[in-house]
Amino acid sequence: MEFEAFTASALADYLGGIAEVRARLDDSSDLDIAEVGDGNLNFVYFVTNARERERSVVVKQAPPFLRLIGKNWPLSCQRMDHEVAALRRFGALCPQHVPKVYYADQKRYLMVMQHLAEHRILRQGLIDGVTYPLLADHMATYLAHTLFYGSDLFLAPDIKKEAVGRAVNAELCKITEDLVFTFPFEDHPSNVYSAALPASALERLRTSEPLRLVAADMKWAFMNHAETLLHGDLHTGSIMVNERETYVIDSEFAFYGPMGFDIGALIANLLLAYFSRDYHGRLNDGDPHAYQEWLLDQVVRIWNGFSAAFLKLWREHESRSGRRFIGGAADSRTVDAYRAHFMRRLLADTLGFAGCKMIRRIVGMAKVAEITRIPDAALRAQIELRCLHCAEVLLVQRAMLTDIEQVSMLARDTLREAAASR
Amino acid sequence: MEFEAFTASALADYLGGIAEVRARLDDSSDLDIAEVGDGNLNFVYFVTNARERERSVVVKQAPPFLRLIGKNWPLSCQRMDHEVAALRRFGALCPQHVPKVYYADQKRYLMVMQHLAEHRILRQGLIDGVTYPLLADHMATYLAHTLFYGSDLFLAPDIKKEAVGRAVNAELCKITEDLVFTFPFEDHPSNVYSAALPASALERLRTSEPLRLVAADMKWAFMNHAETLLHGDLHTGSIMVNERETYVIDSEFAFYGPMGFDIGALIANLLLAYFSRDYHGRLNDGDPHAYQEWLLDQVVRIWNGFSAAFLKLWREHESRSGRRFIGGAADSRTVDAYRAHFMRRLLADTLGFAGCKMIRRIVGMAKVAEITRIPDAALRAQIELRCLHCAEVLLVQRAMLTDIEQVSMLARDTLREAAASR
Repeated sequence: MEFEAFTASALADYLGGIAEVRARLDDSSDLDIAEVGDGNLNFVYFVTNARERERSVVVKQAPPFLRLIGKNWPLSCQRMDHEVAALRRFGALCPQHVPKVYYADQKRYLMVMQHLAEHRILRQGLIDGVTYPLLADHMATYLAHTLFYGSDLFLAPDIKKEAVGRAVNAELCKITEDLVFTFPFEDHPSNVYSAALPASALERLRTSEPLRLVAADMKWAFMNHAETLLHGDLHTGSIMVNERETYVIDSEFAFYGPMGFDIGALIANLLLAYFSRDYHGRLNDGDPHAYQEWLLDQVVRIWNGFSAAFLKLWREHESRSGRRFIGGAADSRTVDAYRAHFMRRLLADTLGFAGCKMIRRIVGMAKVAEITRIPDAALRAQIELRCLHCAEVLLVQRAMLTDIEQVSMLARDTLREAAASR
Repeated sequence: MEFEAFTASALADYLGGIAEVRARLDDSSDLDIAEVGDGNLNFVYFVTNARERERSVVVKQAPPFLRLIGKNWPLSCQRMDHEVAALRRFGALCPQHVPKVYYADQKRYLMVMQHLAEHRILRQGLIDGVTYPLLADHMATYLAHTLFYGSDLFLAPDIKKEAVGRAVNAELCKITEDLVFTFPFEDHPSNVYSAALPASALERLRTSEPLRLVAADMKWAFMNHAETLLHGDLHTGSIMVNERETYVIDSEFAFYGPMGFDIGALIANLLLAYFSRDYHGRLNDGDPHAYQEWLLDQVVRIWNGFSAAFLKLWREHESRSGRRFIGGAADSRTVDAYRAHFMRRLLADTLGFAGCKMIRRIVGMAKVAEITRIPDAALRAQIELRCLHCAEVLLVQRAMLTDIEQVSMLARDTLREAAASR
């Protein structure tokens, strides 16, 4: 059957037949329905009781193709199953940061979920230079809970292995394997280069041996290291915020993968915001500096907060259960040393993934608004070069960067050296 | 239903009803049936046509418990499904080194397979000091084919991910997680220590921080790195040999895990044979030296042969398919550099797993005959200490040992230093 997007009246009829949704909207006789999907994949509708506007839901439906491209890029609708399963799982672990799922219809590849009416996409907020005082704490909590509770540090090994099998999400992983880890390092027809980006920068991505080796290592880790249930696409467009609250949405890329991938995606996007601030922050004679420092502070606080919260969950769980991943009989110094060693390895992974995610946003098909909205081609290319430089250092030196403060120093140095060479 | 092992007559009746088996045995009216299972897990029968003794099969059945311990260690019979699936897969990849499966009965957790009547268990051959001129080549071929063709270097990513889900083998993996990676480093009641092994050696396993950290890293890799379909228990008791042929049996531990685990298991067991040769090789006024050198030569030839064959499969596949794991556009120097880098990482993994496998055979529950058959408690403890020392260096220095010759040097040095300090 050919996929057809709902008309407003067909969707109203459909929703009227679902008790859970009627209960939420109270009365479904007079609904405002607006299609608002601006992502790459899905149709998204805001459905609001026209007489009581605080009563509203979001309907999200997966068409059998990549919406960004159209019917020529078929994509199985099963991605909605992955999104629903992951939202429910993450919601159970971290209800304060995950929208509620009211209803899921497997046959129509559709779900009805909480409408975050008072929140906006974090990426937009960052472009506008808004600071969110609780963002770092919230994201640290979200990351610690979702990454810890899906892993072998918490789950019984049989339960975890079953979860790995259930979460296989080959189709959406393939998009990441290609668009993040392979195409950006090739002269691939899907790549999109900004007008003034020098050919030498592209050449460098393709020919730098240390960079290619590490990028391939990160691809291997992404494809093989089934460490925990990941969000799988945790950029700043997948986070909705306001001053008080933070929600993570759009989990259709969820699968069992390496822990560093989600944290790396978030850090990468904060660094893209940092470098692109040199344009957005100077509009109306502004000074980008203070907001750039706020962004770097978020990077540091998200990692340090995540790390502290993750270690706390780990220590408390092992103390309650009386069993340790490393086994018994080690003195507490060894147990602590292992945990520190684990977190160093996780930081190195995180930075490697962050580097790949930054590079793909500069040279790959899917861009980010903070870069594409820079109208001056030369300035945009300058900013893109800084992103690429920072990303390369993150990748190649990821094992030497043993502390997140070194990452903010790297970002500042990249900006300062660029300024000095102007 | 309570499990009851077949009586000979019941088994003859059962086999008589299976066309594939009748065809193989020709006539099932006069069968010799002998239960010969000496492994830890299963019942194994040799079934022979008494009038044409070259017509014979092996019947293997999984009872719902660990045979080594008895009904108090329940174990699901599904392990037979894993064994059959893995034998068939490995047999398709490498028919010359994998016994044929004639028939599998999922309901009875039983299979009928090729009888390797002219072969013996490699471990027994090594204890007797037999050299096998083709062993290293055969095992290098087996390892290269099984490890390569199950991985993302060959399989399409969706096919590989499905295979990971299908191969989940939580119950038998748990045995490895506990007995190889956890209990040996604890003061665990299941551990078995030989009489004269000094307490300081056990203390060292439990308290050496570098050792504990690396052992936990290897456990994490075993549980998380779903790189290829492994045999999962590739010690010298899982290999049947004669001068001309080499077969790998007993694949019930098969699962998607880190490539280095199978190679490491084999190298570990060759090193255990090397150190224990100081006893077996001196019986009847013998000199162990030449055979020890033969054993080390096998270690070197297996790794180098595996590495060359694996790289050849990899190069040929990428040249045929026109696609490379690392992506296009890199010059051939970078492609080669990545492959070399991949193999160095794989060697480091291999040596880490080898170290854990050696340690578990010295202090864990499941021993190896070349050690337990040493009647002199003091000599046995000396040999065990050398095994533990070598294993610890393999683990802790695994990333520095970039060449397999360094491993044979380490083994020789361990023996020489022990001799000097006598």
